Amino acid sequence: MLTDICPFDEIRMLLANLPPPCERSVAAVRRRDAELTKPPGALGRLEEIVEWLAALQGKAEPAIERPLVAVFAGNHGVAAKGVSAFPASVTKQMLDNFTSGGAAINQICATFGVGLKVFELALELPTRDMSETAAMEEKEAAATFAYGMEAIDGGVDLLAPGEMGIGNTSAAAAIYGALYGGPAARWTGRGTGLDDEGLARKNAVIDQALALHAGHLADPLEILRRLGGREIAAMMGAILAARLAGVPVLLDGYVACAAAALLHAMDENAIGHCLAGHASPEGAHRDVLQRLGKAPLLDLGMRLGEGSGAALAIGLVKAALACHRDMATFASAGVSGKTG
Amino acid sequence: MLTDICPFDEIRMLLANLPPPCERSVAAVRRRDAELTKPPGALGRLEEIVEWLAALQGKAEPAIERPLVAVFAGNHGVAAKGVSAFPASVTKQMLDNFTSGGAAINQICATFGVGLKVFELALELPTRDMSETAAMEEKEAAATFAYGMEAIDGGVDLLAPGEMGIGNTSAAAAIYGALYGGPAARWTGRGTGLDDEGLARKNAVIDQALALHAGHLADPLEILRRLGGREIAAMMGAILAARLAGVPVLLDGYVACAAAALLHAMDENAIGHCLAGHASPEGAHRDVLQRLGKAPLLDLGMRLGEGSGAALAIGLVKAALACHRDMATFASAGVSGKTG
Repeated sequence: MLTDICPFDEIRMLLANLPPPCERSVAAVRRRDAELTKPPGALGRLEEIVEWLAALQGKAEPAIERPLVAVFAGNHGVAAKGVSAFPASVTKQMLDNFTSGGAAINQICATFGVGLKVFELALELPTRDMSETAAMEEKEAAATFAYGMEAIDGGVDLLAPGEMGIGNTSAAAAIYGALYGGPAARWTGRGTGLDDEGLARKNAVIDQALALHAGHLADPLEILRRLGGREIAAMMGAILAARLAGVPVLLDGYVACAAAALLHAMDENAIGHCLAGHASPEGAHRDVLQRLGKAPLLDLGMRLGEGSGAALAIGLVKAALACHRDMATFASAGVSGKTG
Repeated sequence: MLTDICPFDEIRMLLANLPPPCERSVAAVRRRDAELTKPPGALGRLEEIVEWLAALQGKAEPAIERPLVAVFAGNHGVAAKGVSAFPASVTKQMLDNFTSGGAAINQICATFGVGLKVFELALELPTRDMSETAAMEEKEAAATFAYGMEAIDGGVDLLAPGEMGIGNTSAAAAIYGALYGGPAARWTGRGTGLDDEGLARKNAVIDQALALHAGHLADPLEILRRLGGREIAAMMGAILAARLAGVPVLLDGYVACAAAALLHAMDENAIGHCLAGHASPEGAHRDVLQRLGKAPLLDLGMRLGEGSGAALAIGLVKAALACHRDMATFASAGVSGKTG
């Protein structure tokens, strides 16, 4: 890395050379799809999924051998303001739960044969309280972004970035408010289960943060630094690294999409490799997905985070790929084609 | 079976003693769910799925060891009227494709470890053309219904009934028209891919059938006999057998739901054990699901039949069950509970 430019400039430079999708591979997938023993288009979005994989992997026969859920865990200074129904200590406790195999994401990954890696992001050093000061220094945010880029190491060929962090739906809501405008109440939800009083407190704290940083929120990386969190920075890095390496990404819910939204605000094309795994009922997630131009694959009322919705969608990706790869053609199965 | 009553009366008698759901098992599932390391409700419909399994299986710890997709294949006299984009010979060809493992349903079942059985329903004897006469005799329809009831034999603990039959979206549309009113165009879709001219022809043929049988469509079993098909009769039997045996059923798309709709018209409670696997874009399937009171688990634009949408939803069921069964509790994982 160059040393005479600021850390965020290094990130900006990465966005200057985003590889194009491989149209030739998409065309090959479409040609084979037309020969498979089914009416054209009858597998709906399963067909879109295979084209998406081909476009990114640059292969006429895309494959998923090493799918990974990468869960990033960070702590948030703003949690001290009572914006969550759970204490901040739960971040570390849940991280231990991931490690020992007891969380929901462990079971979903096991069901579909998906790898799981957990990235602990200096839990003993929470970000600063965004309602009083900037959450991070530029160096801190950039270093965590760079660390997140390692998520695709080791031949990962499908990535689902997930997160854990008490207080992080507040950070995500603040990011949405900064990117898209409106008061906190426009974007927030009850997170892990706030009551009415707790939600009012959360909204007030986020509005305070938005007011404090107003005038400094034009640059998405500055939004990340002032309002974000370590896991959001790391997910941005993971998503961008995947974009550069041609690794398809399934987006999880409310918090994971804040990372995608920041990249999208830098360059729409930066999340061209992402499909939305699911729609969450948390806050205005559905609105966010629309702004990102992503139609969710699943809509099951899940609002857990951990990458759980995206991991569930990996089951769909596996089925889609199996159909494309292993179905017989009209010719090989001796099935008659359309008459009209 | 009694011999001095008509075959349809035997079916009616089966509906007289539908077992109730096991509320005690549902309560046990809810108690455990509240202890799992996640905010209450955060897994959304995955939690509903486990309660559904418990209610039917009557077990506090429901299990899915032998899920089955049962594909019923039948031929339709009305196919001779040009209501499909594919020739009637494709029904038998696709059945061979199922048997040799080349169809979409084979790949989806393989992906999620689901069994697949194919039931051939006298393909050499298509039903009669419903636009000219009743499609079946009562004995014929009742015998096929009874045959369908065998689908759950061998310890099946989750059933997804599927179908194959060139012309059967016409039969299903006619059934919806008879049950819910309106002209054919209100209910039909393009099936395997009709062009505008073909769709107009299909609508005209179905409207002719509805006019011919008008005045005889008050009884759902009579609708089945006059407008249905063998695979629809068999799926009705399979769904009802599952209802009686406490086997949960995932409904597939447009044609499979015609069987469910007929049972529902006989007694709403007859499909109390069904969840909708997916919503199809074919015809008015979404409207049908609303009338049946079933919110689809998936909505991916799939319109293939074969049980493919329901089979895909079995992946969700497996993940839901894994979460419920294998997640740690707050106590076992040492995770703090809610503060507020």
